[in-house]
Amino acid sequence: MADKPSKGLADVVAASTALSDIDGQAGRLFYRGYDIHQLADVATFEEIAYLLQRGTPPTPAELDGYRAELAAGRALGKLAGSTLAVVSAAQGPMEALRSLVSLASADDPDKDSNAPAANAAKAARLTAQQPILVAAYHAARQGRELPPPDPGLSLAANFLLQLRGSVPAERDAEILDTCLVLHADHTMNASTFAARVCAATLSDMHSAVVAALGTLKGPLHGGANEQVMRGLMAIRAAAGSDPVAEVAPVIRDRLAAGQKIMGFGHRVYKTEDPRATHLRQMAAELAAASGDDTYYRMSRQMEETVFAEKGLYPNVDFFAATVYHYLGIPTDLFTSVFSVSRMAGWTAHVMEQHADNRLIRPDSEYIGERDLTWQPLSER
Amino acid sequence: MADKPSKGLADVVAASTALSDIDGQAGRLFYRGYDIHQLADVATFEEIAYLLQRGTPPTPAELDGYRAELAAGRALGKLAGSTLAVVSAAQGPMEALRSLVSLASADDPDKDSNAPAANAAKAARLTAQQPILVAAYHAARQGRELPPPDPGLSLAANFLLQLRGSVPAERDAEILDTCLVLHADHTMNASTFAARVCAATLSDMHSAVVAALGTLKGPLHGGANEQVMRGLMAIRAAAGSDPVAEVAPVIRDRLAAGQKIMGFGHRVYKTEDPRATHLRQMAAELAAASGDDTYYRMSRQMEETVFAEKGLYPNVDFFAATVYHYLGIPTDLFTSVFSVSRMAGWTAHVMEQHADNRLIRPDSEYIGERDLTWQPLSER
Repeated sequence: MADKPSKGLADVVAASTALSDIDGQAGRLFYRGYDIHQLADVATFEEIAYLLQRGTPPTPAELDGYRAELAAGRALGKLAGSTLAVVSAAQGPMEALRSLVSLASADDPDKDSNAPAANAAKAARLTAQQPILVAAYHAARQGRELPPPDPGLSLAANFLLQLRGSVPAERDAEILDTCLVLHADHTMNASTFAARVCAATLSDMHSAVVAALGTLKGPLHGGANEQVMRGLMAIRAAAGSDPVAEVAPVIRDRLAAGQKIMGFGHRVYKTEDPRATHLRQMAAELAAASGDDTYYRMSRQMEETVFAEKGLYPNVDFFAATVYHYLGIPTDLFTSVFSVSRMAGWTAHVMEQHADNRLIRPDSEYIGERDLTWQPLSER
Repeated sequence: MADKPSKGLADVVAASTALSDIDGQAGRLFYRGYDIHQLADVATFEEIAYLLQRGTPPTPAELDGYRAELAAGRALGKLAGSTLAVVSAAQGPMEALRSLVSLASADDPDKDSNAPAANAAKAARLTAQQPILVAAYHAARQGRELPPPDPGLSLAANFLLQLRGSVPAERDAEILDTCLVLHADHTMNASTFAARVCAATLSDMHSAVVAALGTLKGPLHGGANEQVMRGLMAIRAAAGSDPVAEVAPVIRDRLAAGQKIMGFGHRVYKTEDPRATHLRQMAAELAAASGDDTYYRMSRQMEETVFAEKGLYPNVDFFAATVYHYLGIPTDLFTSVFSVSRMAGWTAHVMEQHADNRLIRPDSEYIGERDLTWQPLSER
């Protein structure tokens, strides 16, 4: 007789990890023992990807070597490169990324090996490739050439350059870099868990991150940041001259109707998500600089209303939406930007899973009918 | 403080399902309450796919309607169809299926809806499409045209026709049909669980089955049937005139060296896997008819040796390997054939997950260092 299920595996410890840790009561997040608050403003995404994938903060020489690996990993392989145009024309952003990363395994020289060195090389290539895929997808659907990468720029700055077609302001690049640092890993979130379930069959890293991309796509996970922005846009479009004043009544009506407000609450945090603290600050800064802080003020009003009505805090997706908006990122690419960062964590989790593997194969509780007798087709 | 992890979630009930049930002590498997032993020889794969996806055995009229849906779903969409040749040339079978199913969402009219009717339509299309993708992949890499489907044939018979290029013997088609029935669903196996983790973010059915395909690829899951056959081939290639006699010493040596023998043991069954019972019989029948029963006799010897040494029973993958071999299926397509069947179960699980959803987001146990201080790059 099976135990009763823990629906959604809430509070069930599914794996051990040395990659990240959450103190949900205190609202703290750690990457390999470093509090995210220490890292947000000073560490670069490249340092964090290295930390997660290779275990320690890089020395200057190690960081130079890792940057060189990333630069070498930027080139799209033949299969993904040759199909990019037709895929971009036919699929939405996360659909296309799922396809293109799956196609990209064809040209990865280490695709069939789960050995630590092969996995480390693939992790760097996948991390380098993801922003290029997003920018190339966007360029392809707009019918313009992808600007060549600038090897002197950070991954975040180069991503903005290739996405927008012009060199970004230094502060924009810093803010995006901080966003990538904040999204890089988050214990056993659904996409990371999907990647580990896949990797635990000793399947390969590309299969695992393709599983993760499809999982991140869902609106209860990475898809939420796009939904947050669309929600703000819809309220603004329907409002009169003062959209900020419209927020509270709209949100109260939705909550009264039992609707979920995207970007609020988290299974693990019982207080403010520490990533939201940084994202709120950056949203405020970008809003002030933009000359139109309406979405920021609407967001603050929404935050106050949801807290007053439900006691829920904003999560990572809530202020990421306005930050990405003010950075000029198209709304339908918000989840893709999340994937650029989380690729660092997914690949590190695959390496950790392969290093000490056991098949992840849970039980289920059977809730259907029992001991039925199959009738021949002619007697049904 | 988190609980200690159940590594691999062994014996943890992760979900409720009305689709299948296993009695691991008695060695029984049920699909929606029907014992697999009742179904193996009399039910067709189309009836089982309908049973899993739609809830009840089909009446004759319902089965006709479902077969018409499958026939309509056979056509490859524009994106998967137009990229088939380059994908098939560049990727291995399970890699290519992962890519092609991801690409196929582009042309599915219901791709953005998780509503029950949309999911049911997609489930039928994905079930119809999977054997076509496998056969088209094989034809493309061989540089030959895919034979047109024969609407009068069963899914299994048509699959053999399109895979081999000639109309199969009736008994071959029956045996493959039984194989598809036996592989259609199996509670919370790793690929099904990956599909449910993905679907539980309210991501779409294509994303979930792409996650499942990448997970099935692993040698600790669907990839095992191919490994079984390669193991038999390697022993035979190295043996003298009596390969059957070589089996026991080779297996004993491997077990003594601590190696895992693929195709034996299962986390849930404590006795013989009921699917193995049917597959063994079919392997014997096909071996006798083939005029060379060497691989069958080698398999029996391997089974006896592993049981004598370790007390392990063969699982579904062990005799599936020899059955597929005697059916003339190329060894590197064995896991792909598994996916043709399991697509029925994956899609049904996605529908069940969407119908009563909660995000699957477990906890993890942190095992790394704590409270470290981040040093600036220049001080490392």
